[in-house]
Amino acid sequence: MYSEVKNTSNANEGQFLTTLLFSVNDRVGILDECLTAIRNLNISLTRIESRPSRDLGWDYDFFVDFSADDEQLSAAIKSLREITKQVKVISSGGSQGVSMPWFPRRKYDLDTFADKVLEMGEELDADHPGALDPVYRARRAEITRLAKTHRHGYPIPKVKYTEQEIETWGTVFRSLKKLFSTHACREHQLVFPLLEKNCGYSENNIPQLEDVSKFLKDYTGFTLRPVMGLLTSRDFLNGLAFRVFHSTQYIRHHSKPHYTPEPDVCHELLGHVPLFCDPDFADFSQEIGLASLGASDNDIEKLSTIYWFTVEFGLCRQGNDIRAYGAGLLSSFGELEYSLTDKPEKRPFDPHKTSEQKYIVTEYQPIYFVAESFKDAQQKVRDFSNTLDRPFSVRYNPYTESIEVLDTQEKILRYAQNIKNDMVTLVDGLERL
Amino acid sequence: MYSEVKNTSNANEGQFLTTLLFSVNDRVGILDECLTAIRNLNISLTRIESRPSRDLGWDYDFFVDFSADDEQLSAAIKSLREITKQVKVISSGGSQGVSMPWFPRRKYDLDTFADKVLEMGEELDADHPGALDPVYRARRAEITRLAKTHRHGYPIPKVKYTEQEIETWGTVFRSLKKLFSTHACREHQLVFPLLEKNCGYSENNIPQLEDVSKFLKDYTGFTLRPVMGLLTSRDFLNGLAFRVFHSTQYIRHHSKPHYTPEPDVCHELLGHVPLFCDPDFADFSQEIGLASLGASDNDIEKLSTIYWFTVEFGLCRQGNDIRAYGAGLLSSFGELEYSLTDKPEKRPFDPHKTSEQKYIVTEYQPIYFVAESFKDAQQKVRDFSNTLDRPFSVRYNPYTESIEVLDTQEKILRYAQNIKNDMVTLVDGLERL
Amino acid sequence: MYSEVKNTSNANEGQFLTTLLFSVNDRVGILDECLTAIRNLNISLTRIESRPSRDLGWDYDFFVDFSADDEQLSAAIKSLREITKQVKVISSGGSQGVSMPWFPRRKYDLDTFADKVLEMGEELDADHPGALDPVYRARRAEITRLAKTHRHGYPIPKVKYTEQEIETWGTVFRSLKKLFSTHACREHQLVFPLLEKNCGYSENNIPQLEDVSKFLKDYTGFTLRPVMGLLTSRDFLNGLAFRVFHSTQYIRHHSKPHYTPEPDVCHELLGHVPLFCDPDFADFSQEIGLASLGASDNDIEKLSTIYWFTVEFGLCRQGNDIRAYGAGLLSSFGELEYSLTDKPEKRPFDPHKTSEQKYIVTEYQPIYFVAESFKDAQQKVRDFSNTLDRPFSVRYNPYTESIEVLDTQEKILRYAQNIKNDMVTLVDGLERL
Amino acid sequence: MYSEVKNTSNANEGQFLTTLLFSVNDRVGILDECLTAIRNLNISLTRIESRPSRDLGWDYDFFVDFSADDEQLSAAIKSLREITKQVKVISSGGSQGVSMPWFPRRKYDLDTFADKVLEMGEELDADHPGALDPVYRARRAEITRLAKTHRHGYPIPKVKYTEQEIETWGTVFRSLKKLFSTHACREHQLVFPLLEKNCGYSENNIPQLEDVSKFLKDYTGFTLRPVMGLLTSRDFLNGLAFRVFHSTQYIRHHSKPHYTPEPDVCHELLGHVPLFCDPDFADFSQEIGLASLGASDNDIEKLSTIYWFTVEFGLCRQGNDIRAYGAGLLSSFGELEYSLTDKPEKRPFDPHKTSEQKYIVTEYQPIYFVAESFKDAQQKVRDFSNTLDRPFSVRYNPYTESIEVLDTQEKILRYAQNIKNDMVTLVDGLERL
Repeated sequence: MYSEVKNTSNANEGQFLTTLLFSVNDRVGILDECLTAIRNLNISLTRIESRPSRDLGWDYDFFVDFSADDEQLSAAIKSLREITKQVKVISSGGSQGVSMPWFPRRKYDLDTFADKVLEMGEELDADHPGALDPVYRARRAEITRLAKTHRHGYPIPKVKYTEQEIETWGTVFRSLKKLFSTHACREHQLVFPLLEKNCGYSENNIPQLEDVSKFLKDYTGFTLRPVMGLLTSRDFLNGLAFRVFHSTQYIRHHSKPHYTPEPDVCHELLGHVPLFCDPDFADFSQEIGLASLGASDNDIEKLSTIYWFTVEFGLCRQGNDIRAYGAGLLSSFGELEYSLTDKPEKRPFDPHKTSEQKYIVTEYQPIYFVAESFKDAQQKVRDFSNTLDRPFSVRYNPYTESIEVLDTQEKILRYAQNIKNDMVTLVDGLERL
Repeated sequence: MYSEVKNTSNANEGQFLTTLLFSVNDRVGILDECLTAIRNLNISLTRIESRPSRDLGWDYDFFVDFSADDEQLSAAIKSLREITKQVKVISSGGSQGVSMPWFPRRKYDLDTFADKVLEMGEELDADHPGALDPVYRARRAEITRLAKTHRHGYPIPKVKYTEQEIETWGTVFRSLKKLFSTHACREHQLVFPLLEKNCGYSENNIPQLEDVSKFLKDYTGFTLRPVMGLLTSRDFLNGLAFRVFHSTQYIRHHSKPHYTPEPDVCHELLGHVPLFCDPDFADFSQEIGLASLGASDNDIEKLSTIYWFTVEFGLCRQGNDIRAYGAGLLSSFGELEYSLTDKPEKRPFDPHKTSEQKYIVTEYQPIYFVAESFKDAQQKVRDFSNTLDRPFSVRYNPYTESIEVLDTQEKILRYAQNIKNDMVTLVDGLERL
Repeated sequence: MYSEVKNTSNANEGQFLTTLLFSVNDRVGILDECLTAIRNLNISLTRIESRPSRDLGWDYDFFVDFSADDEQLSAAIKSLREITKQVKVISSGGSQGVSMPWFPRRKYDLDTFADKVLEMGEELDADHPGALDPVYRARRAEITRLAKTHRHGYPIPKVKYTEQEIETWGTVFRSLKKLFSTHACREHQLVFPLLEKNCGYSENNIPQLEDVSKFLKDYTGFTLRPVMGLLTSRDFLNGLAFRVFHSTQYIRHHSKPHYTPEPDVCHELLGHVPLFCDPDFADFSQEIGLASLGASDNDIEKLSTIYWFTVEFGLCRQGNDIRAYGAGLLSSFGELEYSLTDKPEKRPFDPHKTSEQKYIVTEYQPIYFVAESFKDAQQKVRDFSNTLDRPFSVRYNPYTESIEVLDTQEKILRYAQNIKNDMVTLVDGLERL
Repeated sequence: MYSEVKNTSNANEGQFLTTLLFSVNDRVGILDECLTAIRNLNISLTRIESRPSRDLGWDYDFFVDFSADDEQLSAAIKSLREITKQVKVISSGGSQGVSMPWFPRRKYDLDTFADKVLEMGEELDADHPGALDPVYRARRAEITRLAKTHRHGYPIPKVKYTEQEIETWGTVFRSLKKLFSTHACREHQLVFPLLEKNCGYSENNIPQLEDVSKFLKDYTGFTLRPVMGLLTSRDFLNGLAFRVFHSTQYIRHHSKPHYTPEPDVCHELLGHVPLFCDPDFADFSQEIGLASLGASDNDIEKLSTIYWFTVEFGLCRQGNDIRAYGAGLLSSFGELEYSLTDKPEKRPFDPHKTSEQKYIVTEYQPIYFVAESFKDAQQKVRDFSNTLDRPFSVRYNPYTESIEVLDTQEKILRYAQNIKNDMVTLVDGLERL
């Protein structure tokens, strides 16, 4: 992610994503009735989910996600009210005073992001080194189409990279690898050889996202998901809540191997991936993601700035030294060297201040923020996000790969029971230590 | 699962699965050295896992799983000791006084169970209605081969069922569906129509395991995994620790639609699946699974008996009534009716007593055990499993889909931090309620 | 405690203790109005407590405890209803279908037990060795009067024991001390010399309850409270919920130094006190106490039986040996020796079974129950008490020395916040270990 | 507390308080040997505590607190080393590189503060309105002597106030009471009438500390302890860790009823006490206290500044209004009015900034800090104190009224078990809600 904030989560003008919940009681034919009603809404559904209700007094809950404009939404509500009184707009991208912006509830809801890219989705900016190279543009489009059609639950398509692409990668790989031992944080250094052994990292080979994603899953549960280009900040951060990192799969233009105006596979694989192997860094990243779910545009901007100064351009303390852990640094030969010199200013990471810091995308950063540790940074982001004004609490359920809004006593109770069981296991473990 | 206990977790005579851990410090070429040493062991490896060490004092940990006999194991240890002093047998199916039996650490380790079936893997017992029907046996073998080659991470192959198979299913489906409203527990009743709407449950269609598995994943995180036939109790229960249910995919012989001496797709889909949609039942089942990891043969027998009298033949209290939730009942027209009459004896579920109760596989049960609720049953199994003599504690990490043995302070600390974070989220949710 | 169960918690025939709660909103003069109304009830008040309400919607809560008969109670409720609609009978010893029996809410509520003794309060049974000795009876009465007038918050009066009394004590002390090193559990053995050094335990001196109580307070927070004689089981066990042990202060008759039909200061100081110095035993004892609050008569009988077979006559495993920890054994030369021989039967401690075991008070026990450890016993009692049918949960707040019934969301939230804070501190400690 | 920071915790020049821990194994006569050795140290002991060791490998721990100079301390250590190798300086006020400053471990250790007052202990500053009034000074000295001899565990002596003193109190009482309804926070307003009803608050009566202390104990577990005058910041804050508030008992000079340069009974009873009745405020105050235990001088200064801007001069948000909760405001007619006007600056409470803010003691504050709520303030102080560099974690055990340093696995385990038990009780309560 290299982007400014643009919060248009919606493909079509005037349309926005909405989650409706309605609940019904069990009676003959009720499910048919509901499904028929939903189908008759004549809107573009992205998810229908039905389950035994978690609310006392109702037997079934239906969650319906769709893209619609204001008028269609009103019509849908009205139509469902004929079946049951219990119809609620849970979250919506619409403007009419809805309490929370729409956000994905299930990992596969991220499928809706597939073709929502801010820029350079298929066009390239004038300053892109490949902007005038029709061969490059065609190749880039070929790869982004793979991302566009990829769906949750399927292996990430493998790309057979060309000689030229591998050569570009090799140039970047060699120059960065030299710097890692002196400039990268210990977490990066330790895991890099494992990526070489297990995932095909080498100067002669561009690793496949699918292999890397499986490796990450084993380490921290993070997975990669191919993306066409820059997502909105909201969408991108929302992905992190599910431990999903949206990754490009194409590579920069061969003419300038040490420069790219957009993320590419060098940036993702050499900069981001090694860090996502670390459990504390993974926790930290998910924490930002969870805070972003249903956040106001203003808070998204703050979180996105924090992301910029940590996951992209963060430094951290390592004993008496300072080292880089931000992917923007770890994938840029020039800025990586520069960042550890005395030229830029270094301030302690403090989300309250960091989130307010302005930054520019096109030059070396004049200011970096230094984290004490990833665990410390996670705690600080957590404390910070508690000061944001989101009126609800969420948890991620890794079993069902879904977000739960803690808004009923029944959900709180179930969560408390889980914590109790964990506590029993913890004490059991402590007793045997 | 319909089996007696046979704890031969090993395919080849004299060979057994072992997990070795060895740790090394970072130095030039160390990873190469380790991998070469492992490859030179000349044994059948099922997993090599390397990661930054979680133990202070070491940089990398290697976990190596393999099948070997006593001699090969000794040779392997000796050979690795030339690289590092830190070599440990973590768990082993071998006989020579190893502290804990081998058990799967990662969800994909269940791949090692694929061709270990007790009986009827490809042969059929004499009393099997299809034993003398070569067409049935060939068809059955065709389907079990799909299970044999299935691997973690891939979709479950779909089976195109024949007219005759669908007819057999339809007969069973119709007769059982009539009884559900009066004999099945509420959890089964509520979710059954959802399976009809979402997973193709109907008298004219045998649902595909893949569709059902995805549905389950959304509800409780359980998934199905196709299996050739009966696993050992140990293997089968171990799967539950990962929320994996090993399911057959073939169907009983058409000549006797109301009888089968082994589990089949009717039993799995009509009996087991609806219950795994319930969060409390899912917790309960995983609890048994977790208790089974590395348990002694004696304790496996107890847990397997508990499984028999709950997941297979359990009754539960529903207000003033008693209803069936065991899949052995819910998939057997005759025993389902019988079980709620006055003929069999009904005792309260108490794992201490239930685990000692003898039972027969071939007739209606003379005794059933009645659970107060799934949550209560889970708590009781948890308390019970604390009385078993396993000298270590485990937790399941659903992010990485792996089992963690809580044997170092670092793991305990990380777990405690997770619980703390959960507790913060819980309180946040409570405050907003 | 040596008693059968007699659950008459009430001094006067037809009268019973009741706790009323009523809540009011803030308005001019409301507190005066309430206090006037309470005073006009014309009943015997034992506590009036007012505080800012913990219930949304109300400003003040009043808790009023009093002794009254059915008619007086009805009149009181009617009268208070003129001030506010919010009047509730919280708990009551009365018969008319009240949800929970009265129980003490604050440590000083135990003052109401002061003169409620079952027997031998001032009279002695015929079989008491001092029954016909008027000097002994007068002396005993003199000491019990101290207990009768003692109140919470004041030092326990010291008794100047006579030469004869000290001689009786000395005889008991010497004979028991010889057995401790071979028959008492390790917890008793370790702490006994500390009692000798710090609390005046010696063959020539009867320790003062006040000194011992302060010592206990430092170790586990337990305190002693002088008592006239046997309390009802309910009252006695209720005391343990507050970590208060009701202790006699008089001594057995000099004619039979090795026999007493009732508890005396030898039994308390040599048998009970050393165990209450152990944190796990203290937790265990309080656990029984908490379970007894507001329990049904039937459950009080079960808990009291558990108390009998543990705190009074318990054995425990110590490595390969079995040792005594019950005070009834540790203060009886004969039964202490007998209990570790092969003559009596020894069964594992299991509250479900132990609570049903009949016993006789007047002879050596034919059956003893053996605990694995105090922690294990505590866990078992906790699990057991969850199976009792008390419809509410309680916690003890050691800051305010009061019992809290967890019946509102606000109390649950506050409790959860405390646990969260504890969890943060725990993790902090673990991180530094 | 109105003081600048003066961290001389020691009465005699060159002497300082030290806590030694030594551990021994059980053998004949060992306790005698230890006690003899301690007595022979020939130093001024303030506490000897012995108990079964919580450290594996040792049977008994001795904690010895004493006042000594460097030489005496070295001699003591040397002497004890003759008995056991396990001798540790736990904490010390001495200069020679000891890891943590001395701090009280038990509530009764606060007895050592009794005669350590900074100023005005018995002398009065020139600007004190009573400085030249010998009758006032004699009366003040009479009352402070009560504080000097008071010891933990005894009732606070009652003072029979003179007509003139009561008149001074009455003047203050009347003028402040008028302002409370518009200027005090809701917590103060709600509890004030209860203090009138229960503790003798009225214009004609100065309440007795003993009565107020008992009342507080029932509400939040806070207690008052009489003090001669200003304690050092360290000592004063340390008291809060035990929920002990050091309170003066004398009253300001009658000539200036609306002014006092030092705390007096008007300040304590009208300003502080009502707030300590609130559970969240009590938690908040104890949190500051716990952070102060063994803190560096620098951190004591920060905490003391936070105390100043909260407990003494804090404002808080109440719906749309701002109200006062600081005792310095609530006991000063003039500043209370002034503080809610537009004249002073108001900033949000943020411990990081607040702790750095300079302040003057002798004038109205130009800046106040506004808390969102006491719970929020507590959380912030907790997060803040985690950033202080104290190398150990403490918890308060309210049962034994002692501070526990979480420095062994055994203590961590016991703590974790407590939390687990609390969690079980919480879930039980939630289930019944």
